[in-house]
Amino acid sequence: MPGMLIDVRRFVPEALAGFCDLYGGYVQAVPGGVIRSRTTADAKVALVIGGGSGHYPAFSGYVGAGLADGAVVGNIFASPSSRQVRDVAHAAQRGRGVVLAFGNYTGDVLNFELAAERLRSEGIETEIVRVTDDIASAPDDRRELRRGVAGDVIVFKIAGAAAERGLPLPDVAALARAANERTRSFGVAFRGCTVPGASTPLFALDEGVMGVGMGIHGEPGIRDQPLCTAEELADLLVTRLLLEAPTTASGRPVVLLNGLGATKSEELFYLWRHIRARLDASGIDPAAVEAGEFVTSFDMCGCSLTMGWLDPEVLELWHDPVHTPALQRGSLPVLQTVSNIAPAPPPAPLRGTGGMEGRKDVGRFVRVMGAIAIKLAEEEEELNRLDAVAGDGDHGRAMAAGAHAAHEAARAAADVDADLKTAFATAADAWCDAAGGTSGALWAAGLRAAASALPLR
Amino acid sequence: MPGMLIDVRRFVPEALAGFCDLYGGYVQAVPGGVIRSRTTADAKVALVIGGGSGHYPAFSGYVGAGLADGAVVGNIFASPSSRQVRDVAHAAQRGRGVVLAFGNYTGDVLNFELAAERLRSEGIETEIVRVTDDIASAPDDRRELRRGVAGDVIVFKIAGAAAERGLPLPDVAALARAANERTRSFGVAFRGCTVPGASTPLFALDEGVMGVGMGIHGEPGIRDQPLCTAEELADLLVTRLLLEAPTTASGRPVVLLNGLGATKSEELFYLWRHIRARLDASGIDPAAVEAGEFVTSFDMCGCSLTMGWLDPEVLELWHDPVHTPALQRGSLPVLQTVSNIAPAPPPAPLRGTGGMEGRKDVGRFVRVMGAIAIKLAEEEEELNRLDAVAGDGDHGRAMAAGAHAAHEAARAAADVDADLKTAFATAADAWCDAAGGTSGALWAAGLRAAASALPLR
Repeated sequence: MPGMLIDVRRFVPEALAGFCDLYGGYVQAVPGGVIRSRTTADAKVALVIGGGSGHYPAFSGYVGAGLADGAVVGNIFASPSSRQVRDVAHAAQRGRGVVLAFGNYTGDVLNFELAAERLRSEGIETEIVRVTDDIASAPDDRRELRRGVAGDVIVFKIAGAAAERGLPLPDVAALARAANERTRSFGVAFRGCTVPGASTPLFALDEGVMGVGMGIHGEPGIRDQPLCTAEELADLLVTRLLLEAPTTASGRPVVLLNGLGATKSEELFYLWRHIRARLDASGIDPAAVEAGEFVTSFDMCGCSLTMGWLDPEVLELWHDPVHTPALQRGSLPVLQTVSNIAPAPPPAPLRGTGGMEGRKDVGRFVRVMGAIAIKLAEEEEELNRLDAVAGDGDHGRAMAAGAHAAHEAARAAADVDADLKTAFATAADAWCDAAGGTSGALWAAGLRAAASALPLR
Repeated sequence: MPGMLIDVRRFVPEALAGFCDLYGGYVQAVPGGVIRSRTTADAKVALVIGGGSGHYPAFSGYVGAGLADGAVVGNIFASPSSRQVRDVAHAAQRGRGVVLAFGNYTGDVLNFELAAERLRSEGIETEIVRVTDDIASAPDDRRELRRGVAGDVIVFKIAGAAAERGLPLPDVAALARAANERTRSFGVAFRGCTVPGASTPLFALDEGVMGVGMGIHGEPGIRDQPLCTAEELADLLVTRLLLEAPTTASGRPVVLLNGLGATKSEELFYLWRHIRARLDASGIDPAAVEAGEFVTSFDMCGCSLTMGWLDPEVLELWHDPVHTPALQRGSLPVLQTVSNIAPAPPPAPLRGTGGMEGRKDVGRFVRVMGAIAIKLAEEEEELNRLDAVAGDGDHGRAMAAGAHAAHEAARAAADVDADLKTAFATAADAWCDAAGGTSGALWAAGLRAAASALPLR
C-alpha cells in the first residue's frame, strides 16, 4: 500500500521500539521481543507467544496481565529464531515453567521446538502448544497439519487466564490444548497485503473474485469464487464452521469475527449483522461475541470467523479479566512497574580445546564458511527475486545474514582455539539467530547435525 | 477496496445494528443513532456527538461511561439530519441540558444548529461545540473555519469527563471549547478510500506522491509532495504543529497519532518512534501519548498527528476513567443495563385549519412537489454521476429521497386540510429528515423560509 518510504531492515526493531514507548504501562523490550512491564501477583507459569511481524495485535499486543507474559517478535511474516524464543522465555519465566504457544507454521514449529529443547536443557520446564484452527488448510482427520489464524486469540487467552490463576504447567498446557481442539476458523481474502517497503501486493486475486479459505500470508485456499453479498458470506462462513464443529459441541461457542487489516470496522459490523442472523437461524446463542482486528496481515482485505466451543470450565477462563494493549476486560489490581528483569544468561563461552590438529580443521571450516558467505552475499538480490514469486521476497537477505553470522562465529571459535565440533555448533546457532525464519532453522539444523557427528575433543 | 457486495442503501442501518448487537454492554439503538445502554450514576449533562458514517470509532465507538451519552449516525460521509440529532438528544438527555459536539463541516453545522434550535424550543437547554483542529484547512487567524479531524477525540473526552463529574452545562461546554482552542492536528494522505459499494477510490493521488494536509474525505490539502521517510514525515508533522502551538502552550501536550484506516498499527509504531525522537529534540515531554485508529476514513492510507496543549485542570479530565467500545481506561463501577429509555416525543400532529382556500393552495403545492419528486427520481443517476466527480456520489440519491419524502408530507398535509404554511413547514422537515447531509438541510431551509413568509391561518 502507498505510505512512508520504509527501510525494511529497520522496520521491525523500530516499530517494536515505538510500540514499547507507547505501551510502556504494559510491556518492555527484551532481547528477542517483549515481556510485561508490571509485576504479577505471584510466581506463575509464564505464557510466551510469538511469530512473525505484520499481524498486530498478534503477538505483542497480547502481552499483559491475564494473558501472555512475553511475545517473541520475528521479522515480517518470518518466524523468530530459536535464540529469540529462548531469550524471551528466560526473561519472562518465574521458576514455574513456560508454555510456548504459536500458530502452526513450519518456521515457527522448528524454532519454537528447538527453543523448547534449549530451555529444558537449561533447567526450565517447557510445554509447546501449536494453534491449528484454520479448517481450510487441512482436512478434519489431519487437524494437526492445520495453520493457526485468529483462533490464536482464544487459545492464548485460555492459557493466559489459567496461568494467571496460578495453575501448574501441565494444567495450563492441557487447558490451552483443549481450547485449540475445540476452536475452528474459516476465512476469505479479497486482496493481498503489501508489506512495508514493497510496491505491489504479496499476492493478487482476479477482479471480482475472493479467495475462499486463503491463508493470512496468501497461502492457497480451497477455491476462488465471485464476490458475494454479506448474507451469502455469512452463510458460507457459518455453514463451513458448523460442519466442522466438534462432535460434542455445546450450542454456546465463543465467536470472533476478525478483520485482516483493510476490511474496516463498519464493514465487519455490517457482516456481523448477517452472521448473527445466520447463527440465530441455526439455534446458536454464542457465549461471547467480538468483532475487530485480532490477527491481521497489514492491509490485506478479508476476514475470518472463529468459533470456540469451549467446555464450561474453559469458558470461564475466557471471561477472566485481561489487561493488554489490544484486549482489555474487567478489573485487575494496579500493579507496580518493574524494571529489574534478569537478562537471559548468555550461552556458555567457547572453550579453547582444539589443539594443533583442531586449529587446522577449524581454519578450513572458517574458509569454507567465508566462501559461502561471499557467494550468498553476491546472490542476495537474485534469491530475493526468486522468493518474491512465491513468498515475501526476503530469502536472499536471510541467507546472506545467516551465512555472514555463521562465518563470524566460526572465526570467533578459531580465535579461542575451539575444537571443530564447537565451531560447527556455534556457527549453527549464529546462522539460526541471524537469519530467523524457516531457512535459518533448517541451515542451523544441518550444521548442528554435522556438529553432533564430530567427536568431542 | 475489494470486499463483499454491499447494498449501499442498507449499509449504515445494518452496520449500526451489527455494532449495537456486538456492543450491547455499552450502547443501544434509538431513532437517529445510539445512546448508552447502562445507567449513569446520577442526572448529568448529556454529551451528544455525531457526524457521517465511515469514520469508526468516530462516532458511535465513543459512547459510554465517561464519554458521550449518545451518537448521531449519518449516512456515509454525510451529516445526520437535524431530526436525527434532535431524536438522539431527546433519548440521551437527563434534564440537565445537552452539549452537541461535532466536527466543523457545513452539513453538520447546519443540521446540529437547526437541531439545537428545535431542542431549545422544546425546553431542552443546548450548547454547541464545533471541533476545529485541522490546521491545514484554514489559517491561524481564521481558526473558526477549520475542519474537525482526530482532535474530536480530545474535545469529546474532555466534555464527556466534565459531564460525568456532574459539572453544569455552561462549564461542560466551556471546558470542551477550551480544549478545542488548544488542540491542533495535521495529516497526510497516501491513498483515497473506497466507500462501500463503490469500485474505485473517492480520490486519487499520483504514484509516489502524498497529499499534505489533505482532509479525511479527500478535501484539498496544502500541497502534494513526494513520499518521504518516517524521519522526514515525523519532522513535517511535528514542525507544523509546533509552529501553530497556542502561544501559552506548556511543554506537555496530549499527543495522538491517528491512522486513517489502511496505514496499519506496525507502521504507526514505526512512525511513532521517529515522532518521539523529534519531540525529544524539541524538549517536548508529552503528558499522554496514544497511537491507533481514532477518526478513520474506511481504507484510506494516511495518518495525522494531534497535539492538545491542555491546561492542567483540563488535562486531569483527559485522564479520567472511560469505558466505551473504542476507548477504555481506568475502573468505573459496573452499572445496570437499562432499557426503559423514553422515546423522543413525536413532533406535534398536523392541524386541519386550511379551509376551502387553503385546500386549493395546498393541492397546488402537492402537485408542484410531485413534479419535483418525479424529475429528481429521473435525474438521480445523473446527479450521482456529477457528484462522484467532486464528492461521494450520493447527491442524486439524497435529492430523490428528500423530494419524495417532501411530496409525501405535502400529501399528508392535504389529507388533514392543513393550511399552506403548515404544508410547507412539514415538507421542509420531511426533506431534511429523509435526505440528511448538507443538501437536505439547505432545501429544508428554503422550504422553511417560504413557510415563514406565509401567513398563519
